[in-house]
Amino acid sequence: KEAIDDPFLTDPKRCPELRTLTAKPCNAETPGKGLAEFLTPNKMFYVRNHMWVPVVEEGKHELTVELPDGEEKSYTLKELKERFPTHKVTATLQCAGNRRKDMTDNQSKVTNGLQWTAGAISTAEWEGVKLKDVLADAGLKPDSLPEDAKHAQFTGLEAYGASIPMSKAVDPHGDVLLAFRMNGEELPRDHGYPLRVIVPGNVAARSVKWLRKIVISDEESLSQWQRRDYKCFGPNVSVPDWSKAKSIQEMPITSAITGISNPSLPKDSKDGKPISVEGYAYSGGGREIVRVDISTDGGKTWDQAELVDDQMNGAKAWCWKRWRYSGLKRDSGKTSVLVKATDEAYNTQPESYDAIYNPRGNLATAWHRVEIDSKA
Amino acid sequence: KEAIDDPFLTDPKRCPELRTLTAKPCNAETPGKGLAEFLTPNKMFYVRNHMWVPVVEEGKHELTVELPDGEEKSYTLKELKERFPTHKVTATLQCAGNRRKDMTDNQSKVTNGLQWTAGAISTAEWEGVKLKDVLADAGLKPDSLPEDAKHAQFTGLEAYGASIPMSKAVDPHGDVLLAFRMNGEELPRDHGYPLRVIVPGNVAARSVKWLRKIVISDEESLSQWQRRDYKCFGPNVSVPDWSKAKSIQEMPITSAITGISNPSLPKDSKDGKPISVEGYAYSGGGREIVRVDISTDGGKTWDQAELVDDQMNGAKAWCWKRWRYSGLKRDSGKTSVLVKATDEAYNTQPESYDAIYNPRGNLATAWHRVEIDSKA
Ligand SMILES: [Mo]
Ligand SMILES: [Mo]
Repeated sequence: KEAIDDPFLTDPKRCPELRTLTAKPCNAETPGKGLAEFLTPNKMFYVRNHMWVPVVEEGKHELTVELPDGEEKSYTLKELKERFPTHKVTATLQCAGNRRKDMTDNQSKVTNGLQWTAGAISTAEWEGVKLKDVLADAGLKPDSLPEDAKHAQFTGLEAYGASIPMSKAVDPHGDVLLAFRMNGEELPRDHGYPLRVIVPGNVAARSVKWLRKIVISDEESLSQWQRRDYKCFGPNVSVPDWSKAKSIQEMPITSAITGISNPSLPKDSKDGKPISVEGYAYSGGGREIVRVDISTDGGKTWDQAELVDDQMNGAKAWCWKRWRYSGLKRDSGKTSVLVKATDEAYNTQPESYDAIYNPRGNLATAWHRVEIDSKA
Repeated sequence: KEAIDDPFLTDPKRCPELRTLTAKPCNAETPGKGLAEFLTPNKMFYVRNHMWVPVVEEGKHELTVELPDGEEKSYTLKELKERFPTHKVTATLQCAGNRRKDMTDNQSKVTNGLQWTAGAISTAEWEGVKLKDVLADAGLKPDSLPEDAKHAQFTGLEAYGASIPMSKAVDPHGDVLLAFRMNGEELPRDHGYPLRVIVPGNVAARSVKWLRKIVISDEESLSQWQRRDYKCFGPNVSVPDWSKAKSIQEMPITSAITGISNPSLPKDSKDGKPISVEGYAYSGGGREIVRVDISTDGGKTWDQAELVDDQMNGAKAWCWKRWRYSGLKRDSGKTSVLVKATDEAYNTQPESYDAIYNPRGNLATAWHRVEIDSKA
């Protein structure tokens, strides 16, 4: 009775270092400490729950795959692990609303959604079986897909749903996983225990947690999270015609400053430590970050940050790139630091928010700016 | 003797409507009339030659494929056509220097390269055999590529060379062609007769013309066009360290205004025709254009252009998207029209050139601005 009244009562305990935006459902971002590591510790991995955390007995969990002709095939977790090769893929997940607060603060209109700062993004090594292998076993051969096999729809135990195009689902270099392990541990309950989808390079909203069903269909998932929430519109559009915009799948390039070292050391300090900044840059679709530019004069001149060469598993660059920059002057007083990144397709970030504003505040990817107060 | 003194003497005659930048070698851009059509007529397709046009007798042309172990296999044109299925792929080619003049005119430093306006881009339906099929026949199976098969290097008859990563060369959805026909006609001499590479979604510099050799290697082409010219750097870098930047392959998103209709009709004209603008938007990597935004107040407010639904062949959106916009006021006098586009990964264009300046003036993709003088 209690659990019916409040389905959140059975939610797991969370790490107090997470920055909680809402408790029911739990939405909490990764603190700077967690963003500083290449692989985010599981307990500091940002949590984006649309509802409660389902209670699952592992032995009883089953995944059902439904083909366009209505044919169904079910797999227990044990069968998935025994019948298909397991793969490890390192991938960043990022909420479409990451940095939304930055958009809200830097243009004149409201945005409707959780006011994330720069921590609705994290990276893990995921372990699981490939979606394409399971679909092939269920009867979908990639070389002879039926005409109506256009989208793979995912449904979670708590009713959340989303879909991805079949081209991504069966891409041999797409690395889409049905994952049951995260950073070498069993998948935590907040992150989809016992089974979740990982769609590397796409908005995290497609990496459905607590996966119970996959439907192969000629249309996208009917859920509001596919048909409405995760879309963008022109900056003039205040009442969206949801059917007119394309669902967010691959993510655009972004970057953020997440840490400042020794900002308050005086100019004549014998300490010797430089003032430095660090952060991440990330682009969707497996497009590698090739350059991170830093400006301390409002964008008039730029210098390049050092990119950290982290090791990862996977067919493409599915991960954020960490960067560091130490070229800051000690005696500058208040300094505004700007960051922008470039990916291997040489796409860059927009300068400001006015031209990418949308009422949902999605994809807040303008140059990131942080003020540093270094003692003169 | 004469041909040795001037190898350009045997170049083909060109359409006088092309806008010629240099005659030897021929570099000429597509006029507005050609940019208005989805498929650019062959005679108006922009010409980007790095040297002279080789003189080829079709019957004698041979393509040689060299594998990492040194093994070679040769194919006459006749053999290519007979032994492999032919495919039609509609693809836009765009020079890395398209719109370079716009970059030069809109920031404070010089750019070193041909001063193209918005016409170093064109679209055609290409017909040929798939590179991956030929490579498989030559001994390279996509499922068991040798470790040292990392790049496909292409060499033309005139010594031009470039390469693409193997992941693109053998991608089943990459549509890389060895093409011998263009818009239903034999490949014109200026465009690579009798055989050229078409790398959809990548900078045109990789679509090597007059193809005579393919070398599969563990490194990129050694040519200056691979190792130097077609790269970008931070806006602060005036003396590039060429080894530090990644070769341009997939192209970033761009757009341009290419035509204005009836700009000088008076406000009270009984003619009824609106003032309208039109143009193209294009993004590399097969990423479809999902929105084109227009501003007539310098970017303060925006409206959406109508996208033209053109038909194309191919696994992805390899083509430009034509757009039209009729919301211009009759009585506005001098109006500045701005365009910017968004692709399916929701990448957008940078606002201005200062932050993407590079000494070669490559990838000039800032918002495009055109002044219209409509009578008050
Ligand atoms: Mo999200
Ligand atoms: Mo080019």
